[in-house]
Amino acid sequence: MSLEILPVAGIGEVKPGQDLAALIVEATGGDRLRDGDCVVVTQKVVSKAEGRLVPIDPADPLSHKPLVEQESVRVLRRRGDLVISETAHGFVCANAGVDLSNVEEGFAALLPIDSDRSARRIRDRLRALAKVEVAVVISDTFGRPWRRGVTDTAIGCAGIAAVVDLRGSTDALGRELKVTEVALVDEIAAAADLVMGKSKGVPVAIVRGLDEAWFRPGSVAKEIVRPPADDLFR
Amino acid sequence: MSLEILPVAGIGEVKPGQDLAALIVEATGGDRLRDGDCVVVTQKVVSKAEGRLVPIDPADPLSHKPLVEQESVRVLRRRGDLVISETAHGFVCANAGVDLSNVEEGFAALLPIDSDRSARRIRDRLRALAKVEVAVVISDTFGRPWRRGVTDTAIGCAGIAAVVDLRGSTDALGRELKVTEVALVDEIAAAADLVMGKSKGVPVAIVRGLDEAWFRPGSVAKEIVRPPADDLFR
Repeated sequence: MSLEILPVAGIGEVKPGQDLAALIVEATGGDRLRDGDCVVVTQKVVSKAEGRLVPIDPADPLSHKPLVEQESVRVLRRRGDLVISETAHGFVCANAGVDLSNVEEGFAALLPIDSDRSARRIRDRLRALAKVEVAVVISDTFGRPWRRGVTDTAIGCAGIAAVVDLRGSTDALGRELKVTEVALVDEIAAAADLVMGKSKGVPVAIVRGLDEAWFRPGSVAKEIVRPPADDLFR
Repeated sequence: MSLEILPVAGIGEVKPGQDLAALIVEATGGDRLRDGDCVVVTQKVVSKAEGRLVPIDPADPLSHKPLVEQESVRVLRRRGDLVISETAHGFVCANAGVDLSNVEEGFAALLPIDSDRSARRIRDRLRALAKVEVAVVISDTFGRPWRRGVTDTAIGCAGIAAVVDLRGSTDALGRELKVTEVALVDEIAAAADLVMGKSKGVPVAIVRGLDEAWFRPGSVAKEIVRPPADDLFR
């Protein structure tokens, strides 16, 4: 089983209220999406299409800071201007996901209210418009403790398992694997970023060739977000 | 630029002292590797080939625990049998990377001593044997705080930038991006895992189609491991 990752270019600037699925179908020429594809969409275009934009003062480099506080339910760390906090969704990330890059000057983009739901909407619209059964993953760019550099990770999904549980299957030597719950959609988001880049204006990618068994209802909120009580690091 | 990810099957059980590059060339039929490929190799087969195996008592489920203590330079968290610690390499992971799954009964596998060096060796041997200029990434499976599920991540690399620094480039709207250092090799490791699975005996994958500009000397130890003093979470 080999995998292909195809960038979807040509979507252009996304405006509030636009039908993202229609833009994706148009950009793919209407015939490039196939059953069993996983369509990865970056948070930024989802937030824009959903109108999650808030005016800020472009002359004031700190004018988005009240938004960061508003979007945070718990601040984990502060250093200088940087805030690492937990959002209402349970994501732990810098600046509570409030983002200024690749957003029109004078605006900040907030995370979608419910990215699993955003993914389901896009998936339903893609089915209606292109007659395809695809999965959808919404990705965002997060830092990590202990390691430098950011990676793309999943904040929402639809039609695909967020976590693939390999507990109870046997390893190649026939012994039972103890715990191998793979964060499938995070690996998919990371893979898709390899064809997106950060500055190329490619907000969507298609991952083709994933295991059929992984296509089932899935949720980042339910499967990946770790409740604070289970977490050794909160 | 689209990407292909190809599993390399048929490598079989790797024994101490075996030439991993030769096994990879043989398994790929000798003609599948191309200049500009990135070969991702899981830590387990690297550790086995390098003889990083330690006998343990297979009847005692805790017999690897002294190894975990020995491989840890700093314990971050304990819960029951689980230890999250920092290794001498600066990796933070469960059980200091000591691993029992897919290892012959009665043995535990330790992390390679210097995975960047291991990657360079494999790369040099692949060049010698198959006359190809490839990059090599060594991957391992780590958990993360705040999010459930494990993902594959890079512990060593050669011939490829570990981190791609997009600071100073402009975003699609022409504004300067502030900080976008992408942990490229971690995204590559995650992508490769999508064709490996955990129980399929596919310890190597080829990632084909990566940006040429990313192929330069790289090091996970130097570029990705975050010194404790820079880390908000140690």
